[in-house]
Amino acid sequence: MSIAARTVQVSPGGRPASGYDILLEPGSSAALPRFLTERLPDCRAAVVVTDEHLQTVATPMADALRGVGVTAKVHVVAAGERSKSLESMHGIFEALLDLKADRRACLVAVGGGVVGDLTGYAAASYMRGIALVQVPTSLLAMVDSSVGGKTGVNLPRGKNLVGAFHQPAGVLIDPDVLATLPDREYHGGLAEVVKYGVISDAEFFAWLEKHAEAILAREAGVLVPLIARCCELKAAVVAADEFETTGVRATLNYGHTFAHAFENLAGYGVLSHGEAVSVGMTCAARLAVARGMIEQAVFDRQTALLQRFQLPIELPAAVDASADAVLAAMRSDKKNVAGALRLVLPVRLGEVRIFADVPEEQVAAALVAS
Amino acid sequence: MSIAARTVQVSPGGRPASGYDILLEPGSSAALPRFLTERLPDCRAAVVVTDEHLQTVATPMADALRGVGVTAKVHVVAAGERSKSLESMHGIFEALLDLKADRRACLVAVGGGVVGDLTGYAAASYMRGIALVQVPTSLLAMVDSSVGGKTGVNLPRGKNLVGAFHQPAGVLIDPDVLATLPDREYHGGLAEVVKYGVISDAEFFAWLEKHAEAILAREAGVLVPLIARCCELKAAVVAADEFETTGVRATLNYGHTFAHAFENLAGYGVLSHGEAVSVGMTCAARLAVARGMIEQAVFDRQTALLQRFQLPIELPAAVDASADAVLAAMRSDKKNVAGALRLVLPVRLGEVRIFADVPEEQVAAALVAS
Repeated sequence: MSIAARTVQVSPGGRPASGYDILLEPGSSAALPRFLTERLPDCRAAVVVTDEHLQTVATPMADALRGVGVTAKVHVVAAGERSKSLESMHGIFEALLDLKADRRACLVAVGGGVVGDLTGYAAASYMRGIALVQVPTSLLAMVDSSVGGKTGVNLPRGKNLVGAFHQPAGVLIDPDVLATLPDREYHGGLAEVVKYGVISDAEFFAWLEKHAEAILAREAGVLVPLIARCCELKAAVVAADEFETTGVRATLNYGHTFAHAFENLAGYGVLSHGEAVSVGMTCAARLAVARGMIEQAVFDRQTALLQRFQLPIELPAAVDASADAVLAAMRSDKKNVAGALRLVLPVRLGEVRIFADVPEEQVAAALVAS
Repeated sequence: MSIAARTVQVSPGGRPASGYDILLEPGSSAALPRFLTERLPDCRAAVVVTDEHLQTVATPMADALRGVGVTAKVHVVAAGERSKSLESMHGIFEALLDLKADRRACLVAVGGGVVGDLTGYAAASYMRGIALVQVPTSLLAMVDSSVGGKTGVNLPRGKNLVGAFHQPAGVLIDPDVLATLPDREYHGGLAEVVKYGVISDAEFFAWLEKHAEAILAREAGVLVPLIARCCELKAAVVAADEFETTGVRATLNYGHTFAHAFENLAGYGVLSHGEAVSVGMTCAARLAVARGMIEQAVFDRQTALLQRFQLPIELPAAVDASADAVLAAMRSDKKNVAGALRLVLPVRLGEVRIFADVPEEQVAAALVAS
């Protein structure tokens, strides 16, 4: 293991028995066969799921798996949110059946959040659960969606409406693959990175401010500690609240109640998820300032860092940002309980709390700069 | 609670926290609102899933739920195995969305194994898991599929290939509804009842022999203890091995490796599941006699009881029972590991063990009476 390598342990719900590790190392894509066989010694068949943009990454992985005696094939889904569907999941089942995959088979997800969520739900479901190895290739997937066991697909009437909690057997992160990630996707991932600082680690937030230039330049020397710290912070949340029942995990939703509404109103694809989160965090922080919960200076630091990372802090003109439309979309968020809006708001840099009693007029006022 | 009522506690995996109870009482269908609200006090919306033959049972249940402040609607699926599909599950999601169901909503499964398995998987999946109440209406569902948390649907290429382990919040069994169950379905359920005796309770087996006439006449005085004992036996297995990992749960599969092959070869519907299990148990017991594991007398008692319950002990002539065809179908059973046939065979009345080393010629020889 090179000196740049890091390992993060995850113990969902505090149960070491269901624990797994995240291996974070430049160039580790080539180490998949060893990573997989160490964790799944009985696995003899694997389907490597990826999207069409990543076939050149996934194909050598499947070849390498065959080299260690695992029957492997690549299954390609279309890139984009539309592949997070029950139909796409059925396609993965067919690929498993083609390999005569039994319960010892595994799925390997090579891609961003769409591939990871879809493949994870397929792994949770095939024969009531087979093993999953996550190989996230986008920054967003590395710091967020590949850790924590949330999997799922969309329905025509909404995102992530069905799925399962299914922890992976391991997560293999090769930061080198970020070199070719499109700028807009990379910056979108940074929105979630900033989020971790605001919700739980002021020191990490300051570290991000200090290294903003190197982060934007995707220097390996900062990417490894950056991703590792995000994974550690998420792992701590998942250890405390695996199934989103105690409220701890809900803190990860900072900015997201706004963001989901914005994504709905914009139509998927107009705003990236990270861009929506960036605007959502801006609204949430503005609301916290208006309620006297944080100083204006906290809002300003968050805004400056988001902008430094080339993220928007307001909606594009094309999106209907009327208060009525946004509030209606927010009310339909599945995280709400019994109809009340649940908002995650900062109480200082590095700490958030959940509020279910914010008047809708206050929420509406926070949508735009006054 | 009437003196005829019984309650069986289930603690999957030995974890009391995920435990639930089975309430078994003649006439208890009318008690659904209290049963549900006691266990799910926060539930405000419920979809009652049933098939077209049971609408007259399910509709008053939904009406009664509305009477206690739970927004409820009946969702009807076509009767029969074809409804165990991803498409039917999507229909249940749509019904939940129509009610704006949040994570506190629940699903109520009123029906046999098809409705229970389908609805259970939908409950496991909607918003990554909502509560489920099982109201089994067939004998098979009462003694087997409603207990233990196995849920799932079929794929075009095979039965039960996808699903989840999802324990219900409670199971409500009203033996009175068995009065109108078609004979063939009732007898099919008795195959699983006989199975419990053979695999784990010789005393219960003898009780079944003694009360065969009253059982066939569906007398309430025998139905309550019969169903309760089967639920207790299954609950003990589920407590020891919730996720089918230790081999204990696999003992429930007695006769089923044969049966699944027979069902595949016959085409779904020609043989009922219970009929296939009856023939499968006969083959398994014959194999055990041939291997010198049990006395001929055990085989004879099992055969006599199955026949007393009007169950077949050999395949109908229309089914291709050639050894090659049966063995090929058995090899594709998802319970197999690494290609070896895993067979559950009796070692005495009331005890079975798992064998992975039975030569295929022996299996072939056990398919027909010599």
